Amino acid sequence: MEDMSDLKSATADAAAAADAVDAADAAVMINDDDLLDFSANPIVQKLNALTIPHVTYPHTLSMTADELVANVPLPSDNTESHTKNLFFKDKKHGLFLVTTCTDADLDTKELGKALKLDGKVNLRLADEELLLEKLACKKGCVGPLSMMNNADKDITLVLDENLMKMNKIHSHPMRNDASTALTPTDLLQFLKEVGVTPTMLSFSKKSSSSSDQPLPGKVPSSRPTGDKSSTKPTFPPKAKDAPKSANMNKKQTKKGETQLALKWKKSENFAMWYTDVIVLSEMISYYDISGCYILRPWSYKIWELIQDWFNIQIRKLGVENSYFPMFVSKDRLEKEKDHVEGFAPEVAWVTKSGDGDLAAPIAVRPTSETIMYPAFADWIRSHRDLPLKLNQWSNVVRWEFKDPTPFLRTREFLWQEGHTAHASFEDANVMVRQALDLYRRVYEELLAVPVIPGYKTEKEKFAGGHTTTTVEAYIPISGRAIQGATSHHLGQNFGKMFDINYQDEKGETQVVWQTSWGLTTRTIGVMVMVHGDDTGLVLPPRVAPVQAVIIPIVSKTCPLENLTGYCEEILKSLEEKEIRCKLDDRSIYNPGWKYAHWEQKGVPIRIEVGPRDLETKSARMVVRFGGEKIDVSVDDLAEAVGKKLEEVQNNMFKKAKEFRDDHLVKVTEWKDFVPNLELHNLVLTPWCGGEHDTWEEWVKEKSREESLQSRGEDGEDARAATSVAAKTLCIPFSQPELAEGMKCIASGLPATCWVLWGRSY
Amino acid sequence: MEDMSDLKSATADAAAAADAVDAADAAVMINDDDLLDFSANPIVQKLNALTIPHVTYPHTLSMTADELVANVPLPSDNTESHTKNLFFKDKKHGLFLVTTCTDADLDTKELGKALKLDGKVNLRLADEELLLEKLACKKGCVGPLSMMNNADKDITLVLDENLMKMNKIHSHPMRNDASTALTPTDLLQFLKEVGVTPTMLSFSKKSSSSSDQPLPGKVPSSRPTGDKSSTKPTFPPKAKDAPKSANMNKKQTKKGETQLALKWKKSENFAMWYTDVIVLSEMISYYDISGCYILRPWSYKIWELIQDWFNIQIRKLGVENSYFPMFVSKDRLEKEKDHVEGFAPEVAWVTKSGDGDLAAPIAVRPTSETIMYPAFADWIRSHRDLPLKLNQWSNVVRWEFKDPTPFLRTREFLWQEGHTAHASFEDANVMVRQALDLYRRVYEELLAVPVIPGYKTEKEKFAGGHTTTTVEAYIPISGRAIQGATSHHLGQNFGKMFDINYQDEKGETQVVWQTSWGLTTRTIGVMVMVHGDDTGLVLPPRVAPVQAVIIPIVSKTCPLENLTGYCEEILKSLEEKEIRCKLDDRSIYNPGWKYAHWEQKGVPIRIEVGPRDLETKSARMVVRFGGEKIDVSVDDLAEAVGKKLEEVQNNMFKKAKEFRDDHLVKVTEWKDFVPNLELHNLVLTPWCGGEHDTWEEWVKEKSREESLQSRGEDGEDARAATSVAAKTLCIPFSQPELAEGMKCIASGLPATCWVLWGRSY
Repeated sequence: MEDMSDLKSATADAAAAADAVDAADAAVMINDDDLLDFSANPIVQKLNALTIPHVTYPHTLSMTADELVANVPLPSDNTESHTKNLFFKDKKHGLFLVTTCTDADLDTKELGKALKLDGKVNLRLADEELLLEKLACKKGCVGPLSMMNNADKDITLVLDENLMKMNKIHSHPMRNDASTALTPTDLLQFLKEVGVTPTMLSFSKKSSSSSDQPLPGKVPSSRPTGDKSSTKPTFPPKAKDAPKSANMNKKQTKKGETQLALKWKKSENFAMWYTDVIVLSEMISYYDISGCYILRPWSYKIWELIQDWFNIQIRKLGVENSYFPMFVSKDRLEKEKDHVEGFAPEVAWVTKSGDGDLAAPIAVRPTSETIMYPAFADWIRSHRDLPLKLNQWSNVVRWEFKDPTPFLRTREFLWQEGHTAHASFEDANVMVRQALDLYRRVYEELLAVPVIPGYKTEKEKFAGGHTTTTVEAYIPISGRAIQGATSHHLGQNFGKMFDINYQDEKGETQVVWQTSWGLTTRTIGVMVMVHGDDTGLVLPPRVAPVQAVIIPIVSKTCPLENLTGYCEEILKSLEEKEIRCKLDDRSIYNPGWKYAHWEQKGVPIRIEVGPRDLETKSARMVVRFGGEKIDVSVDDLAEAVGKKLEEVQNNMFKKAKEFRDDHLVKVTEWKDFVPNLELHNLVLTPWCGGEHDTWEEWVKEKSREESLQSRGEDGEDARAATSVAAKTLCIPFSQPELAEGMKCIASGLPATCWVLWGRSY
Repeated sequence: MEDMSDLKSATADAAAAADAVDAADAAVMINDDDLLDFSANPIVQKLNALTIPHVTYPHTLSMTADELVANVPLPSDNTESHTKNLFFKDKKHGLFLVTTCTDADLDTKELGKALKLDGKVNLRLADEELLLEKLACKKGCVGPLSMMNNADKDITLVLDENLMKMNKIHSHPMRNDASTALTPTDLLQFLKEVGVTPTMLSFSKKSSSSSDQPLPGKVPSSRPTGDKSSTKPTFPPKAKDAPKSANMNKKQTKKGETQLALKWKKSENFAMWYTDVIVLSEMISYYDISGCYILRPWSYKIWELIQDWFNIQIRKLGVENSYFPMFVSKDRLEKEKDHVEGFAPEVAWVTKSGDGDLAAPIAVRPTSETIMYPAFADWIRSHRDLPLKLNQWSNVVRWEFKDPTPFLRTREFLWQEGHTAHASFEDANVMVRQALDLYRRVYEELLAVPVIPGYKTEKEKFAGGHTTTTVEAYIPISGRAIQGATSHHLGQNFGKMFDINYQDEKGETQVVWQTSWGLTTRTIGVMVMVHGDDTGLVLPPRVAPVQAVIIPIVSKTCPLENLTGYCEEILKSLEEKEIRCKLDDRSIYNPGWKYAHWEQKGVPIRIEVGPRDLETKSARMVVRFGGEKIDVSVDDLAEAVGKKLEEVQNNMFKKAKEFRDDHLVKVTEWKDFVPNLELHNLVLTPWCGGEHDTWEEWVKEKSREESLQSRGEDGEDARAATSVAAKTLCIPFSQPELAEGMKCIASGLPATCWVLWGRSY
């Protein structure tokens, strides 16, 4: 076979034609600026089913490869690439999908030669009809992942070998307002799984200078021929193929560039930024089962700090910790009808042990109501046994098929679940509100994230419960709300189903009133999204695993041993004030590297100690939030650090709250509703009350349609895109005054309360 | 149908005949005085497969019902019963197994009438041949559970309705040196599952006095007719049918007897005592999935105290907590051959989510080596990344088919697992020993249980590891050893399998050396078994959820309000000394009830405060361990309690250690080996070393045979009874001097070390 590297001198015909195709009649798709719900996307579903790690993110609709490059900037170090995709038809040789780097040079004649097509070759760009028939894509939406749709297996996929050198390949998941990023190995894995064997070709670059030599030619083949370690398909995908940790990136970016910088800006691509932050700060590692992630010490410690605080608070309320089995029999799980309807589709079932089948399948807990309440029925006999207040910290499993996101939506997650039983509705209600207030405090006092507490509407409440209360948080960049945690009044529903009765003081049999309430590791993700910046994490001091890091400024003239004693004194003085601190005296890293490392990890305060500080008996305090630098006398340092941590905690909350408040608007007329969503606002409106489910649905539909219209898009083709629709977040406890005669924004009926709406995660 | 209650006046022929049958040619079975391994028993297997709660325990071989009653005393309140079983043949009407209370009066003629057998009735006791053929039982071994073996379904089971009034029915699981205890509902459930519909009859009692009237007659039927709530078979068995908690017992034992006393003595029936203690002290509740138990606050708090201590210790060693997914793909799990062989038979597999099948089954972690180490391979690149020391607290699942026991052997359990990687064998070795020493300290310093640390032999080491170290505890009553916790040197085995390489200082690629180590909730069970007494738990102060309980001695002349202030002062003074204490000022219970309640729960110190104490400014301290009572001035009380708690902690350890040391003997000649096992001793012998696996097997076989012989039993029929065999526990680190020329007790080869043997859990 011929080396394709000499194609660089070919005419630009094909490239021009390609752009024309990309531009023509692009499929109308929704456009949003955030993590959308791609759960209905067939490619995302397939990737998830195959547990292939990927990040699928929305972006400005881009009709051509050039537009895409302009609209969705990739890291400047050329380690990631969009793709250009051409779909050819040759009468004699059949169909070809050619996927290259966006800067690849391409000539159809040379392509024919390189592909060793014999006889007459006449590669023509195929029309949209054939594209739709063969790959289920409109023009401008095709990418290598679309090969999945080629049921007839009559298309040859040609891949640019230069793509194989990338850390990530971004291509459209059948829509050109979104891209799916994955590693070359994972792309090859995907193709293998869907029965496609790509042909690898080496394409030269379009605008190559003399110094930009084409790569040594490689023999095209029907199998990948690139570097064995990066292109050899393996099954199952190894963890190594998942997004790389800081160490991995270090390895791959040796040539002088900073090893620690995020590749994505928060405002440019929120989804990729988020992945970058949580991986590089060593919070999360990806895992080879979709929706499951590794919580590394840097995130797990935050969870432990939340646990410690929460345990102290619930103990004051008389709640005791316990542990219930994680398995539940089918009959039990299905005892409460509404409840099981809410959870059944997501339940994971154990059906085998060793090589044998179990007598009956058993479920892994999605929540523990049905596990705990039969025991409640045993334990509770008399009013003297009430209230019963239990909590457990555990893992739960909800096998969702929505696109998973670390912390926010995972198939296994950690949480606490409180379950209580009381003698009266009112007692239970007090418990519900006490638990919810603890959740508010976790967000506001620990994580510095303001939340809005309120009731869920009937439509949004917990399956099987009486009422649900919630705290709702706001994510600045996306303008979306996210449910922080919920506390449910279960009424007597479960009590009746599970026969949880007691004899009251008069000897009469009564059914208990119950509550349940849960807080998950989602808290950590919300905190990252609210506070993180383009340098990495910014941790609120109260949950920072390390609150202050001491870094000796070592140099040739000032070796470590000169500073060690002084630094250790400082360390000791901080520890005495119970500040979580660390002395980074590793000699293998220089101070600059350490600054960047701990900044990325979000440590609130850095204490720099250099030779001059030694002389002046001082140290420099550098604050992660805001960047302030203050020189402090060593005698005052511990106290100054303690005060500064408190100040930072308060200021972080203040800043987040001001921003949230700026995006919280009252709207009394429908015409202002969608425009405010488009401004990334949460919208408070008068409402006719919870009985009219239909009006809630109406707002959802209507806001979706108008959102799409306002962006000039056709609602018809975007049924799956529910994420631009507004839903009710809560009926806030704190209600503005409702003026006389105010009307529900949806129904026009007299309003009974204000309700909060927003786009949501 | 006729009421059977008038059968009481019938002749004693049948009863006498029954005893004769029971006595004749009883099946030879093993005899032990402890929880044995009944995993091979078909009835136990069936009960476990059906997840029907039961306790199966060994006892002295008992040939007749009378012998059984004498040998295995049941609670004196007549709430539990053994059974008498007669197997009849009638030429015309077929086969009948009649199961009654041991004191039932029975006349075959009346039986025929009650069963409405028409025409000529001639019920004759069947011979052993038929018993073996139809029920697979030797004489004296039959019970209602044996009906499972009646494949031809040609036997009518007749059940005594009086049995249905019991809390527990004890019957033989096809061997008359053991009994299986379960509730009537669970017995009916079992019968239903094996396709047997019993006929219920009311039998009168043999030795009825005039005041002991027969119960009102009930119409026999082919379905249970007893109290609906207790005899109606339900599926699945409800938690209510599991052993009852204290509250349940309270309800069932209203008639004046103490509600709090254990029904079993530790020395009489260790297995039933153990169940009694952990249920009545509110540590454990049973659950409807076999091998899964509820850890109630009273046991979970002990686990939290162990966790708190352990977290502090490992932090000092540089170990960080983290959390890894609980699911693992098949390929990963099976990567290390020896490892998977060790675990595969016990692995639980998730194969479905919602209504759909997963693309590939995923395993629930039995341990996390294969989950963590691919991530280790990602994170570790350079010697600078070593050592890596992680720990996680999690639940794990091992779907064992051995008879489960709460805490000791459960299908889901809680543990910590530490996993570390090092640059050298020696570094890893230091970690292994540091972790093991923490385990020793958990047992000895927190749980007051002496342990023997040492190496496991090759035969007993961790699947896939290099060497395993262990701490071995001793259970007094049973004379058995139990593995306390293990710490493994994994060598480079997993490192090679999972490509965990690093560049050393010279730039050369090396494979890491690894360790893993785990401590489980088994700790709690061992502690209960070692320290508990006939009153209930005895908790070592350092792990007692409540270390001191203050009880005001309220009476008519001294109402609570007189004592409240004084008690609260005492409470405050104890809290200031960081003593975990509680003021039990509930007015609904009297002081006597409270004394019994907290004694049963094992609280180390009770502080009684009565009117006289108020006058003398003192209080009475009553110590659970030993029962000492001391009056102390209120000013000195907090300090006295603190000191006493330390003293109790030390004395509990001292007592347990003395007892253990008394049962730890050196044996140098084989002839003394089994006799020492029979004396409940652990045996230390000279040994030729670990290379000769065959000799270890030889000792196991030989000790089993000789044990059975020494009890006059035939080894042939007791193949399943491995539990009287001795196995190696460890090669203790602390080695006695090995005299010149000493020979291995098994092989006769020159000894290289001392090894510890024992019967084991």
